[in-house]
Amino acid sequence: MKRVSPPGKGPALRVPVSNLEPGVCELEGDVARYVQRVHRLRPGARLRLFDPLLALEADAELLEDAGGAARCQIFAVQPSAYRALPIVLLQALAKGEKPELSIREATALGVERIVFVESERVVVKLEPERRATRRTRWQRVAVEAARQCGRGNLPALQGPLPLLDVLAQSTEAQRLLLAAEGEPLFSELDSWRADQTLALLIGPEGGLSGSEARSAAEHGFHPVSLGRTTLRTELAGVAALGALVAFAAWRAIGGA
Amino acid sequence: MKRVSPPGKGPALRVPVSNLEPGVCELEGDVARYVQRVHRLRPGARLRLFDPLLALEADAELLEDAGGAARCQIFAVQPSAYRALPIVLLQALAKGEKPELSIREATALGVERIVFVESERVVVKLEPERRATRRTRWQRVAVEAARQCGRGNLPALQGPLPLLDVLAQSTEAQRLLLAAEGEPLFSELDSWRADQTLALLIGPEGGLSGSEARSAAEHGFHPVSLGRTTLRTELAGVAALGALVAFAAWRAIGGA
Repeated sequence: MKRVSPPGKGPALRVPVSNLEPGVCELEGDVARYVQRVHRLRPGARLRLFDPLLALEADAELLEDAGGAARCQIFAVQPSAYRALPIVLLQALAKGEKPELSIREATALGVERIVFVESERVVVKLEPERRATRRTRWQRVAVEAARQCGRGNLPALQGPLPLLDVLAQSTEAQRLLLAAEGEPLFSELDSWRADQTLALLIGPEGGLSGSEARSAAEHGFHPVSLGRTTLRTELAGVAALGALVAFAAWRAIGGA
Repeated sequence: MKRVSPPGKGPALRVPVSNLEPGVCELEGDVARYVQRVHRLRPGARLRLFDPLLALEADAELLEDAGGAARCQIFAVQPSAYRALPIVLLQALAKGEKPELSIREATALGVERIVFVESERVVVKLEPERRATRRTRWQRVAVEAARQCGRGNLPALQGPLPLLDVLAQSTEAQRLLLAAEGEPLFSELDSWRADQTLALLIGPEGGLSGSEARSAAEHGFHPVSLGRTTLRTELAGVAALGALVAFAAWRAIGGA
Protein backbone atom coordinates (compact mmCIF):
# COMPACT_ATOMS: atom_id res chain seq x y z
CA MET A 1 0.00 0.00 0.00
CA LYS A 2 3.00 2.36 -0.31
CA ARG A 3 2.13 5.11 -2.74
CA VAL A 4 4.72 7.16 -4.50
CA SER A 5 3.41 10.50 -5.74
CA PRO A 6 5.81 12.01 -8.27
CA PRO A 7 5.82 15.81 -8.25
CA GLY A 8 2.96 17.32 -10.20
CA LYS A 9 1.03 14.06 -10.73
CA GLY A 10 -2.35 13.29 -9.18
CA PRO A 11 -4.13 15.31 -6.49
CA ALA A 12 -1.82 16.89 -3.92
CA LEU A 13 -1.49 15.01 -0.63
CA ARG A 14 -3.61 16.53 2.15
CA VAL A 15 -1.53 17.21 5.25
CA PRO A 16 -2.91 18.52 8.57
CA VAL A 17 -0.94 21.31 10.29
CA SER A 18 -1.54 23.78 13.13
CA ASN A 19 -1.38 27.57 12.93
CA LEU A 20 -1.25 27.67 9.15
CA GLU A 21 0.16 30.95 7.80
CA PRO A 22 2.09 31.98 4.67
CA GLY A 23 5.86 31.54 4.58
CA VAL A 24 8.11 28.59 5.22
CA CYS A 25 7.18 25.97 7.81
CA GLU A 26 8.73 22.78 9.07
CA LEU A 27 6.36 19.82 9.31
CA GLU A 28 6.32 18.11 12.70
CA GLY A 29 7.03 14.53 13.80
CA ASP A 30 4.14 12.32 12.66
CA VAL A 31 3.23 14.52 9.74
CA ALA A 32 6.82 14.72 8.51
CA ARG A 33 7.13 10.92 8.67
CA TYR A 34 3.82 10.59 6.85
CA VAL A 35 5.01 12.83 4.02
CA GLN A 36 8.57 11.57 3.74
CA ARG A 37 8.37 7.88 4.65
CA VAL A 38 4.81 6.75 3.93
CA HIS A 39 4.28 8.79 0.78
CA ARG A 40 7.97 9.23 -0.07
CA LEU A 41 7.48 12.74 -1.35
CA ARG A 42 10.60 14.45 -2.65
CA PRO A 43 11.56 18.13 -2.80
CA GLY A 44 9.39 19.90 -5.36
CA ALA A 45 6.31 17.80 -4.52
CA ARG A 46 3.06 19.72 -4.03
CA LEU A 47 1.09 19.39 -0.81
CA ARG A 48 -2.30 20.65 0.28
CA LEU A 49 -1.90 21.81 3.86
CA PHE A 50 -5.01 22.24 5.98
CA ASP A 51 -5.49 23.54 9.48
CA PRO A 52 -8.62 21.82 10.71
CA LEU A 53 -8.97 23.91 13.87
CA LEU A 54 -8.78 27.23 12.01
CA ALA A 55 -10.53 25.82 8.89
CA LEU A 56 -7.78 27.17 6.63
CA GLU A 57 -6.09 25.59 3.61
CA ALA A 58 -3.06 26.34 1.45
CA ASP A 59 -1.02 24.85 -1.36
CA ALA A 60 2.58 24.20 -0.48
CA GLU A 61 5.74 22.76 -2.00
CA LEU A 62 8.24 20.54 -0.26
CA LEU A 63 11.69 22.19 -0.10
CA GLU A 64 15.16 20.64 -0.11
CA ASP A 65 15.75 18.36 2.89
CA ALA A 66 17.76 20.05 5.58
CA GLY A 67 19.14 17.20 7.65
CA GLY A 68 15.96 15.17 7.22
CA ALA A 69 13.55 17.96 8.17
CA ALA A 70 10.45 18.36 6.02
CA ARG A 71 10.26 22.06 5.19
CA CYS A 72 7.57 23.59 2.99
CA GLN A 73 7.02 26.80 1.11
CA ILE A 74 3.40 27.76 1.83
CA PHE A 75 1.44 29.72 -0.79
CA ALA A 76 -1.81 31.70 -0.40
CA VAL A 77 -3.74 30.69 2.73
CA GLN A 78 -7.50 30.52 2.23
CA PRO A 79 -10.53 29.66 4.32
CA SER A 80 -11.65 26.08 3.71
CA ALA A 81 -14.60 25.83 1.33
CA TYR A 82 -15.95 22.88 3.33
CA ARG A 83 -19.36 23.30 4.93
CA ALA A 84 -20.51 20.84 7.58
CA LEU A 85 -24.11 19.66 7.59
CA PRO A 86 -26.37 21.27 10.21
CA ILE A 87 -26.39 18.05 12.25
CA VAL A 88 -25.46 17.58 15.91
CA LEU A 89 -24.83 14.00 17.01
CA LEU A 90 -25.66 13.35 20.68
CA GLN A 91 -24.05 9.95 21.22
CA ALA A 92 -24.20 7.93 24.42
CA LEU A 93 -20.65 7.20 25.49
CA ALA A 94 -19.81 3.55 24.81
CA LYS A 95 -17.01 1.20 25.77
CA GLY A 96 -13.52 0.80 24.33
CA GLU A 97 -12.82 2.32 20.95
CA LYS A 98 -16.45 2.90 20.02
CA PRO A 99 -16.32 6.66 20.69
CA GLU A 100 -13.34 6.90 18.31
CA LEU A 101 -15.37 5.02 15.70
CA SER A 102 -18.28 7.42 16.16
CA ILE A 103 -15.96 10.42 15.78
CA ARG A 104 -14.29 9.02 12.67
CA GLU A 105 -17.57 8.31 10.96
CA ALA A 106 -19.48 11.39 12.03
CA THR A 107 -16.53 13.55 10.93
CA ALA A 108 -16.40 11.86 7.52
CA LEU A 109 -20.17 12.14 7.14
CA GLY A 110 -19.95 15.87 7.80
CA VAL A 111 -21.68 16.58 11.11
CA GLU A 112 -21.12 19.95 12.70
CA ARG A 113 -20.87 18.88 16.37
CA ILE A 114 -20.52 15.65 18.35
CA VAL A 115 -21.57 15.58 22.00
CA PHE A 116 -20.93 12.46 24.07
CA VAL A 117 -23.55 11.98 26.75
CA GLU A 118 -23.56 9.92 29.94
CA SER A 119 -26.84 8.13 30.49
CA GLU A 120 -28.05 5.79 33.23
CA ARG A 121 -27.28 2.61 31.33
CA VAL A 122 -23.99 3.88 30.00
CA VAL A 123 -21.32 1.30 30.76
CA VAL A 124 -18.35 3.66 30.92
CA LYS A 125 -17.73 6.60 33.18
CA LEU A 126 -14.63 8.64 32.41
CA GLU A 127 -12.67 9.63 35.50
CA PRO A 128 -11.83 13.36 35.52
CA GLU A 129 -8.09 12.67 35.24
CA ARG A 130 -8.61 10.57 32.10
CA ARG A 131 -10.76 13.14 30.36
CA ALA A 132 -7.91 15.32 29.13
CA THR A 133 -5.97 12.45 27.52
CA ARG A 134 -9.17 11.07 26.07
CA ARG A 135 -10.08 14.41 24.55
CA THR A 136 -6.63 14.77 22.99
CA ARG A 137 -7.02 11.33 21.44
CA TRP A 138 -10.51 12.17 20.19
CA GLN A 139 -9.25 15.31 18.50
CA ARG A 140 -6.46 13.37 16.82
CA VAL A 141 -8.99 10.88 15.49
CA ALA A 142 -11.12 13.72 14.12
CA VAL A 143 -8.09 15.34 12.43
CA GLU A 144 -7.15 12.04 10.79
CA ALA A 145 -10.73 11.48 9.61
CA ALA A 146 -10.83 15.04 8.24
CA ARG A 147 -7.61 14.38 6.33
CA GLN A 148 -8.87 11.11 4.85
CA CYS A 149 -12.26 12.39 3.77
CA GLY A 150 -11.20 15.79 2.46
CA ARG A 151 -12.93 17.75 5.19
CA GLY A 152 -11.36 21.16 5.86
CA ASN A 153 -12.51 21.66 9.44
CA LEU A 154 -13.29 19.65 12.56
CA PRO A 155 -16.63 18.99 14.16
CA ALA A 156 -16.88 20.54 17.61
CA LEU A 157 -16.21 17.73 20.13
CA GLN A 158 -17.97 17.97 23.49
CA GLY A 159 -18.55 15.90 26.56
CA PRO A 160 -19.01 13.52 28.07
CA LEU A 161 -21.85 15.51 29.67
CA PRO A 162 -24.82 14.29 31.69
CA LEU A 163 -27.69 13.46 29.32
CA LEU A 164 -30.30 15.41 31.26
CA ASP A 165 -28.19 18.59 31.09
CA VAL A 166 -27.72 18.19 27.35
CA LEU A 167 -31.45 17.61 26.82
CA ALA A 168 -32.32 20.68 28.87
CA GLN A 169 -29.96 22.84 26.79
CA SER A 170 -31.00 21.57 23.35
CA THR A 171 -32.30 24.35 21.13
CA GLU A 172 -32.00 22.69 17.71
CA ALA A 173 -35.00 23.18 15.45
CA GLN A 174 -35.26 19.42 14.81
CA ARG A 175 -34.72 17.03 17.72
CA LEU A 176 -34.76 13.29 17.07
CA LEU A 177 -34.19 10.24 19.24
CA LEU A 178 -33.31 7.00 17.46
CA ALA A 179 -35.56 4.31 18.96
CA ALA A 180 -36.84 0.90 17.91
CA GLU A 181 -40.49 1.99 18.03
CA GLY A 182 -40.27 5.42 16.43
CA GLU A 183 -41.86 6.82 13.30
CA PRO A 184 -39.87 6.28 10.10
CA LEU A 185 -36.96 8.75 10.28
CA PHE A 186 -37.83 10.58 7.07
CA SER A 187 -41.46 11.13 7.99
CA GLU A 188 -40.17 13.56 10.64
CA LEU A 189 -37.95 15.48 8.21
CA ASP A 190 -40.47 17.19 5.96
CA SER A 191 -39.91 20.47 7.73
CA TRP A 192 -36.10 20.23 7.91
CA ARG A 193 -34.67 23.29 6.16
CA ALA A 194 -31.11 24.26 5.29
CA ASP A 195 -30.94 26.94 7.96
CA GLN A 196 -32.08 24.61 10.74
CA THR A 197 -29.91 22.41 12.87
CA LEU A 198 -30.97 18.85 13.55
CA ALA A 199 -29.97 17.02 16.75
CA LEU A 200 -29.87 13.22 16.63
CA LEU A 201 -29.70 11.42 19.98
CA ILE A 202 -28.39 7.83 19.98
CA GLY A 203 -28.86 5.97 23.28
CA PRO A 204 -26.51 3.42 24.82
CA GLU A 205 -26.50 -0.34 24.20
CA GLY A 206 -29.34 -0.98 26.64
CA GLY A 207 -31.37 2.03 25.46
CA LEU A 208 -32.44 5.06 27.49
CA SER A 209 -34.12 4.43 30.84
CA GLY A 210 -37.84 5.16 31.10
CA SER A 211 -37.29 8.46 32.87
CA GLU A 212 -34.60 9.52 30.38
CA ALA A 213 -36.90 8.75 27.45
CA ARG A 214 -39.67 10.79 29.13
CA SER A 215 -37.27 13.68 29.66
CA ALA A 216 -36.18 13.50 26.00
CA ALA A 217 -39.85 13.69 24.96
CA GLU A 218 -40.44 16.66 27.28
CA HIS A 219 -37.53 18.45 25.63
CA GLY A 220 -38.97 17.94 22.17
CA PHE A 221 -37.06 14.86 20.98
CA HIS A 222 -39.24 12.76 18.64
CA PRO A 223 -38.56 9.02 18.53
CA VAL A 224 -37.62 7.92 15.01
CA SER A 225 -36.65 4.54 13.67
CA LEU A 226 -34.72 3.14 10.72
CA GLY A 227 -37.46 0.53 10.47
CA ARG A 228 -35.17 -2.29 11.52
CA THR A 229 -34.85 -4.20 14.75
CA THR A 230 -32.02 -3.92 17.26
CA LEU A 231 -28.91 -2.19 15.92
CA ARG A 232 -25.77 -1.88 18.01
CA THR A 233 -25.34 1.72 19.16
CA GLU A 234 -22.33 2.64 17.01
CA LEU A 235 -23.85 0.99 13.94
CA ALA A 236 -27.17 2.73 14.57
CA GLY A 237 -25.36 6.07 14.58
CA VAL A 238 -23.58 5.54 11.26
CA ALA A 239 -26.65 4.11 9.58
CA ALA A 240 -28.88 6.96 10.78
CA LEU A 241 -26.27 9.59 9.86
CA GLY A 242 -25.93 7.98 6.44
CA ALA A 243 -29.68 8.33 6.04
CA LEU A 244 -29.62 11.99 7.13
CA VAL A 245 -26.69 12.81 4.84
CA ALA A 246 -28.43 11.19 1.86
CA PHE A 247 -31.64 13.05 2.71
CA ALA A 248 -29.77 16.36 3.03
CA ALA A 249 -28.07 15.86 -0.37
CA TRP A 250 -31.45 15.06 -1.93
CA ARG A 251 -33.16 18.11 -0.47
CA ALA A 252 -30.06 20.28 -0.98
CA ILE A 253 -29.68 20.97 2.73
CA GLY A 254 -26.26 22.42 3.62
CA GLY A 255 -22.91 20.74 3.23
CA ALA A 256 -20.35 20.77 0.41
CA MET B 1 -21.67 -6.87 31.38
CA LYS B 2 -22.79 -10.27 32.76
CA ARG B 3 -26.53 -10.46 32.62
CA VAL B 4 -28.53 -12.84 34.73
CA SER B 5 -31.99 -13.57 33.34
CA PRO B 6 -34.20 -15.15 35.97
CA PRO B 7 -36.74 -17.62 34.54
CA GLY B 8 -39.82 -15.92 33.15
CA LYS B 9 -38.48 -12.34 33.33
CA GLY B 10 -37.68 -10.18 30.28
CA PRO B 11 -37.57 -11.28 26.65
CA ALA B 12 -36.30 -14.83 26.14
CA LEU B 13 -32.64 -15.12 25.12
CA ARG B 14 -32.22 -15.74 21.39
CA VAL B 15 -30.03 -18.76 20.72
CA PRO B 16 -28.92 -19.96 17.26
CA VAL B 17 -29.13 -23.70 16.55
CA SER B 18 -28.94 -25.93 13.47
CA ASN B 19 -31.58 -28.37 12.25
CA LEU B 20 -34.28 -27.09 14.57
CA GLU B 21 -37.10 -29.58 15.13
CA PRO B 22 -39.56 -30.31 17.97
CA GLY B 23 -38.46 -32.54 20.86
CA VAL B 24 -35.48 -32.43 23.17
CA CYS B 25 -32.12 -31.13 21.95
CA GLU B 26 -28.73 -30.66 23.49
CA LEU B 27 -27.11 -27.27 22.81
CA GLU B 28 -23.60 -27.50 21.40
CA GLY B 29 -20.22 -26.13 22.62
CA ASP B 30 -20.20 -22.35 22.13
CA VAL B 31 -23.95 -22.00 22.40
CA ALA B 32 -24.12 -24.07 25.59
CA ARG B 33 -21.38 -21.94 27.14
CA TYR B 34 -23.18 -18.79 26.05
CA VAL B 35 -26.41 -19.91 27.74
CA GLN B 36 -24.91 -21.40 30.89
CA ARG B 37 -21.85 -19.28 31.60
CA VAL B 38 -22.41 -15.90 29.94
CA HIS B 39 -26.12 -15.60 30.68
CA ARG B 40 -26.15 -18.04 33.64
CA LEU B 41 -29.54 -19.43 32.69
CA ARG B 42 -30.87 -22.11 35.04
CA PRO B 43 -33.23 -25.02 34.40
CA GLY B 44 -36.73 -23.69 33.75
CA ALA B 45 -35.44 -20.61 31.85
CA ARG B 46 -37.16 -19.86 28.55
CA LEU B 47 -35.15 -19.56 25.35
CA ARG B 48 -36.01 -18.48 21.84
CA LEU B 49 -34.19 -20.88 19.53
CA PHE B 50 -33.71 -19.88 15.91
CA ASP B 51 -32.26 -21.74 12.97
CA PRO B 52 -30.95 -19.00 10.69
CA LEU B 53 -30.22 -21.32 7.75
CA LEU B 54 -33.71 -22.84 7.73
CA ALA B 55 -35.36 -19.58 8.91
CA LEU B 56 -37.23 -21.40 11.69
CA GLU B 57 -37.89 -20.36 15.28
CA ALA B 58 -39.22 -22.04 18.43
CA ASP B 59 -39.71 -21.37 22.12
CA ALA B 60 -37.80 -23.74 24.38
CA GLU B 61 -37.16 -24.37 28.06
CA LEU B 62 -33.87 -25.30 29.62
CA LEU B 63 -34.05 -28.75 31.31
CA GLU B 64 -32.21 -30.06 34.36
CA ASP B 65 -28.43 -30.16 33.82
CA ALA B 66 -27.22 -33.63 33.00
CA GLY B 67 -23.52 -33.55 33.84
CA GLY B 68 -23.17 -29.95 32.58
CA ALA B 69 -24.96 -30.50 29.25
CA ALA B 70 -27.47 -27.83 28.23
CA ARG B 71 -30.60 -29.74 27.19
CA CYS B 72 -33.79 -28.04 26.03
CA GLN B 73 -37.41 -28.97 25.55
CA ILE B 74 -38.41 -27.44 22.20
CA PHE B 75 -42.02 -26.35 21.66
CA ALA B 76 -43.83 -25.55 18.38
CA VAL B 77 -41.41 -24.84 15.52
CA GLN B 78 -42.53 -22.02 13.24
CA PRO B 79 -41.17 -20.23 10.19
CA SER B 80 -39.45 -16.99 11.12
CA ALA B 81 -41.63 -13.92 10.56
CA TYR B 82 -38.53 -11.93 9.57
CA ARG B 83 -38.47 -10.50 6.05
CA ALA B 84 -35.24 -9.20 4.60
CA LEU B 85 -35.26 -6.03 2.52
CA PRO B 86 -35.03 -6.52 -1.27
CA ILE B 87 -31.44 -5.26 -1.28
CA VAL B 88 -28.34 -6.99 -2.64
CA LEU B 89 -25.00 -5.57 -1.48
CA LEU B 90 -22.18 -6.02 -4.01
CA GLN B 91 -19.14 -5.17 -1.91
CA ALA B 92 -15.56 -5.02 -3.16
CA LEU B 93 -13.49 -7.37 -1.03
CA ALA B 94 -11.31 -5.37 1.37
CA LYS B 95 -8.41 -6.13 3.67
CA GLY B 96 -8.34 -7.65 7.13
CA GLU B 97 -11.58 -7.84 9.06
CA LYS B 98 -13.45 -5.40 6.85
CA PRO B 99 -15.50 -8.10 5.10
CA GLU B 100 -16.64 -9.34 8.54
CA LEU B 101 -17.68 -5.79 9.39
CA SER B 102 -19.64 -5.52 6.15
CA ILE B 103 -21.38 -8.83 6.86
CA ARG B 104 -22.24 -7.88 10.42
CA GLU B 105 -23.72 -4.56 9.43
CA ALA B 106 -25.50 -5.63 6.26
CA THR B 107 -27.04 -8.56 8.16
CA ALA B 108 -28.26 -6.27 10.94
CA LEU B 109 -29.60 -3.76 8.42
CA GLY B 110 -31.59 -6.52 6.75
CA VAL B 111 -30.13 -7.07 3.29
CA GLU B 112 -31.16 -10.18 1.41
CA ARG B 113 -27.83 -11.07 -0.19
CA ILE B 114 -24.18 -10.05 0.11
CA VAL B 115 -21.81 -10.68 -2.80
CA PHE B 116 -18.11 -9.96 -2.40
CA VAL B 117 -16.51 -8.92 -5.65
CA GLU B 118 -12.89 -8.83 -6.79
CA SER B 119 -12.05 -5.71 -8.73
CA GLU B 120 -8.83 -4.46 -10.34
CA ARG B 121 -7.84 -2.25 -7.44
CA VAL B 122 -8.85 -4.75 -4.80
CA VAL B 123 -5.98 -5.19 -2.39
CA VAL B 124 -6.76 -8.76 -1.29
CA LYS B 125 -7.00 -11.90 -3.36
CA LEU B 126 -8.20 -14.98 -1.53
CA GLU B 127 -6.24 -18.12 -2.36
CA PRO B 128 -8.52 -21.06 -3.22
CA GLU B 129 -7.41 -23.03 -0.13
CA ARG B 130 -8.34 -20.15 2.16
CA ARG B 131 -11.79 -19.66 0.70
CA ALA B 132 -13.46 -22.48 2.61
CA THR B 133 -12.23 -21.37 6.05
CA ARG B 134 -13.03 -17.79 5.20
CA ARG B 135 -16.57 -18.69 4.18
CA THR B 136 -17.12 -20.64 7.40
CA ARG B 137 -15.98 -17.62 9.39
CA TRP B 138 -18.21 -15.31 7.36
CA GLN B 139 -21.22 -17.50 8.04
CA ARG B 140 -20.46 -17.52 11.77
CA VAL B 141 -20.30 -13.71 11.76
CA ALA B 142 -23.67 -13.55 9.99
CA VAL B 143 -25.24 -15.97 12.50
CA GLU B 144 -23.97 -13.89 15.42
CA ALA B 145 -25.24 -10.67 13.82
CA ALA B 146 -28.62 -12.31 13.21
CA ARG B 147 -28.79 -13.34 16.87
CA GLN B 148 -27.92 -9.85 18.13
CA CYS B 149 -30.30 -7.95 15.91
CA GLY B 150 -33.26 -10.30 16.14
CA ARG B 151 -33.07 -11.44 12.53
CA GLY B 152 -34.53 -14.90 11.91
CA ASN B 153 -32.62 -15.81 8.77
CA LEU B 154 -29.27 -15.22 7.12
CA PRO B 155 -28.45 -13.15 4.08
CA ALA B 156 -27.13 -15.30 1.24
CA LEU B 157 -23.32 -14.94 1.27
CA GLN B 158 -21.55 -15.21 -2.08
CA GLY B 159 -18.12 -14.71 -3.56
CA PRO B 160 -15.56 -13.45 -3.85
CA LEU B 161 -16.45 -13.41 -7.56
CA PRO B 162 -14.90 -11.41 -10.40
CA LEU B 163 -16.67 -8.05 -10.67
CA LEU B 164 -17.22 -8.28 -14.42
CA ASP B 165 -18.99 -11.65 -14.06
CA VAL B 166 -21.23 -10.25 -11.31
CA LEU B 167 -22.08 -7.17 -13.40
CA ALA B 168 -22.92 -9.33 -16.42
CA GLN B 169 -25.29 -11.47 -14.35
CA SER B 170 -27.09 -8.65 -12.52
CA THR B 171 -30.83 -8.67 -13.16
CA GLU B 172 -32.03 -6.52 -10.26
CA ALA B 173 -34.64 -3.92 -11.19
CA GLN B 174 -32.62 -1.12 -9.55
CA ARG B 175 -28.83 -1.10 -10.00
CA LEU B 176 -26.79 1.54 -8.22
CA LEU B 177 -23.07 2.23 -7.95
CA LEU B 178 -21.94 4.38 -5.03
CA ALA B 179 -19.60 7.01 -6.48
CA ALA B 180 -18.35 10.44 -5.44
CA GLU B 181 -19.83 12.15 -8.51
CA GLY B 182 -23.22 10.44 -8.68
CA GLU B 183 -26.73 11.84 -8.47
CA PRO B 184 -28.14 12.07 -4.92
CA LEU B 185 -29.01 8.49 -3.93
CA PHE B 186 -32.70 9.13 -3.32
CA SER B 187 -33.27 10.88 -6.63
CA GLU B 188 -32.73 7.46 -8.25
CA LEU B 189 -35.22 5.69 -5.98
CA ASP B 190 -38.53 7.17 -7.05
CA SER B 191 -39.38 4.03 -8.98
CA TRP B 192 -38.22 1.55 -6.30
CA ARG B 193 -41.17 -0.67 -5.44
CA ALA B 194 -41.60 -3.35 -2.77
CA ASP B 195 -41.47 -6.20 -5.28
CA GLN B 196 -38.23 -5.00 -6.86
CA THR B 197 -34.75 -5.88 -5.79
CA LEU B 198 -32.11 -3.18 -5.59
CA ALA B 199 -28.42 -3.93 -6.10
CA LEU B 200 -25.92 -1.56 -4.50
CA LEU B 201 -22.30 -1.81 -5.70
CA ILE B 202 -19.58 -0.44 -3.40
CA GLY B 203 -16.14 -0.23 -4.99
CA PRO B 204 -12.78 -0.77 -3.28
CA GLU B 205 -10.69 1.85 -1.47
CA GLY B 206 -9.19 3.18 -4.70
CA GLY B 207 -12.51 3.11 -6.55
CA LEU B 208 -13.38 1.15 -9.67
CA SER B 209 -11.01 1.38 -12.63
CA GLY B 210 -12.18 3.33 -15.66
CA SER B 211 -13.04 0.19 -17.61
CA GLU B 212 -14.87 -1.33 -14.63
CA ALA B 213 -16.93 1.85 -14.22
CA ARG B 214 -17.79 1.76 -17.94
CA SER B 215 -18.78 -1.89 -17.67
CA ALA B 216 -21.00 -1.09 -14.65
CA ALA B 217 -22.69 1.67 -16.67
CA GLU B 218 -23.20 -0.71 -19.62
CA HIS B 219 -24.89 -3.15 -17.27
CA GLY B 220 -27.31 -0.53 -16.01
CA PHE B 221 -25.62 0.59 -12.79
CA HIS B 222 -26.35 4.28 -12.11
CA PRO B 223 -23.77 6.24 -10.12
CA VAL B 224 -25.28 7.64 -6.93
CA SER B 225 -23.73 9.63 -4.13
CA LEU B 226 -24.39 10.37 -0.49
CA GLY B 227 -23.44 13.95 -1.26
CA ARG B 228 -20.27 13.81 0.80
CA THR B 229 -16.64 13.54 -0.15
CA THR B 230 -14.45 10.47 0.19
CA LEU B 231 -15.79 7.79 2.54
CA ARG B 232 -13.82 4.66 3.36
CA THR B 233 -15.32 1.67 1.57
CA GLU B 234 -16.77 -0.11 4.63
CA LEU B 235 -18.17 3.14 6.04
CA ALA B 236 -19.66 4.03 2.66
CA GLY B 237 -21.48 0.71 2.67
CA VAL B 238 -23.06 1.11 6.10
CA ALA B 239 -23.98 4.73 5.49
CA ALA B 240 -25.57 3.97 2.12
CA LEU B 241 -27.39 0.91 3.48
CA GLY B 242 -28.64 3.00 6.41
CA ALA B 243 -30.01 5.47 3.88
CA LEU B 244 -31.70 2.70 1.86
CA VAL B 245 -33.18 1.08 4.98
CA ALA B 246 -34.59 4.42 6.17
CA PHE B 247 -35.98 5.09 2.69
CA ALA B 248 -37.57 1.62 2.55
CA ALA B 249 -39.22 2.09 5.96
CA TRP B 250 -40.54 5.47 4.85
CA ARG B 251 -41.98 4.14 1.60
CA ALA B 252 -43.07 0.87 3.25
CA ILE B 253 -40.86 -1.26 1.01
CA GLY B 254 -40.42 -4.83 2.29
CA GLY B 255 -38.80 -5.94 5.51
CA ALA B 256 -40.12 -6.56 9.03
